[in-house]
Amino acid sequence: MTTQQLVAEIHKKNSFLCIGLDVDMTKIPAHLLQQEDPIFAFNKAIIDATNHLCVAYKPNTAFYEAYGIKGWISLQKTIAYLNKNYPEIFTIADAKRGDIGNTSTMYAKAFFEDLAFDSVTVAPYMGKDSVEPFLAFEDKHTILLALTSNVGAFDFQTKKINDHEVYQHVLETSKSWKNSENLMYVVGATKATYFKEIRKIIPTSFLLVPGVGAQGGNLQEVCKYGLSENIGLLVNSSRGIIYAANDENFANAAAAKAKELQQQMAGILASNAS
Amino acid sequence: MTTQQLVAEIHKKNSFLCIGLDVDMTKIPAHLLQQEDPIFAFNKAIIDATNHLCVAYKPNTAFYEAYGIKGWISLQKTIAYLNKNYPEIFTIADAKRGDIGNTSTMYAKAFFEDLAFDSVTVAPYMGKDSVEPFLAFEDKHTILLALTSNVGAFDFQTKKINDHEVYQHVLETSKSWKNSENLMYVVGATKATYFKEIRKIIPTSFLLVPGVGAQGGNLQEVCKYGLSENIGLLVNSSRGIIYAANDENFANAAAAKAKELQQQMAGILASNAS
Repeated sequence: MTTQQLVAEIHKKNSFLCIGLDVDMTKIPAHLLQQEDPIFAFNKAIIDATNHLCVAYKPNTAFYEAYGIKGWISLQKTIAYLNKNYPEIFTIADAKRGDIGNTSTMYAKAFFEDLAFDSVTVAPYMGKDSVEPFLAFEDKHTILLALTSNVGAFDFQTKKINDHEVYQHVLETSKSWKNSENLMYVVGATKATYFKEIRKIIPTSFLLVPGVGAQGGNLQEVCKYGLSENIGLLVNSSRGIIYAANDENFANAAAAKAKELQQQMAGILASNAS
Repeated sequence: MTTQQLVAEIHKKNSFLCIGLDVDMTKIPAHLLQQEDPIFAFNKAIIDATNHLCVAYKPNTAFYEAYGIKGWISLQKTIAYLNKNYPEIFTIADAKRGDIGNTSTMYAKAFFEDLAFDSVTVAPYMGKDSVEPFLAFEDKHTILLALTSNVGAFDFQTKKINDHEVYQHVLETSKSWKNSENLMYVVGATKATYFKEIRKIIPTSFLLVPGVGAQGGNLQEVCKYGLSENIGLLVNSSRGIIYAANDENFANAAAAKAKELQQQMAGILASNAS
């Protein structure tokens, strides 16, 4: 999917919501556990109930890998279901991969070719030659970790190299990499005050923003400094939406939570346009 | 496996060799492609021919994920085969994972419980709460990226925060994390001159050292500064061993290459002990 197609979808739905499909078997409704593939059954119900309210889904691979082969099959079925039934949806493999060049190429093949995701999250620690293999894929997007939503972000990401913090070096340096137009960045909603500085370095790049909801990030603050001329934000909520209820009504409850966020977003987009 | 058991195995075999199982279908002998699971058939032959010469195997997960479900099954069969037939071998999932706390717990479950590896490589960018969930597993080891073997290591890892380089901050900071005795570190053989500084910060921790062979690192130099009182090194070679030949004699050719390295290591251990 191209960035233009993503932006068009945001305007069409008045939403820049991404829903995180981080499926923990201990948290899903009990009646689903009798199904052959409870994780896929859960995802399918959530997707069918919420796809008109969001523009992206983001399965976190850890939650699938924890269940071994069965989990990987659930992941494969989920992305295949999305690509077949909702091709207008932007799909994100939240995998946080990254390795030396020939190995990153294998990861890129895994997520862009075998699973056919539109994008994958990648860690920057190993530098240019660990990221460029992902950037080589046309109309695929590499979402680089910049400033993450967790407390540990302060351990290294915000430490100063000369006058700039590590995450600012990551942003600045990555702009010079080959096919850098295929880059997006992870910036946590819990760090809303940083968005102003970030937009000085990357004024228009799309930011994937986790941390709204369960982690305490504030949507209004994120948008105040984070919105760009082409929107440039994908705000993610996982637990706050998908575990809104754990009875037979779970998908409707998730849709209601997604709608709350979508309506806030519609309001922000309207006031931003005026 | 405990560190003591690993050290005992090193002394028993006079080897601190780790063999990387980075299996690329385009590089394995053609006759294996007719097998039901060519990757596992390749690994099994390599393992059977080389296990007396090495103390560890390190499948890189990228090479398995690139083949989807089939690849994940090959990975599962490989680790199960190792654990069943060669329980004295230290196993490393070279996965370079790392995410916010609850997600890292899921990755730890995937590699330590579902697949039952002894250790997993983890990226440090997201800090303490992304690594500690891995450290909570008893007799399991978390191998943190410090200074990697690739050129991109110079993009961020060697940049200075105050008077110390980023990778030095990673080493120093990680020592204060809960259960830090379960930490090992990745330090590339291509950066041999750095080992002296590294040993000042972590005098006894085990280092996983990629980059000998295909990437150009030098074993003698690595050992000169890297060896600790309990050896403290696992030197990895992947392509230089497993692709030594690609005809029907491939496993013997791999064993010959592994033996070359093992004998160099035996010499180094002997002169180190005297």
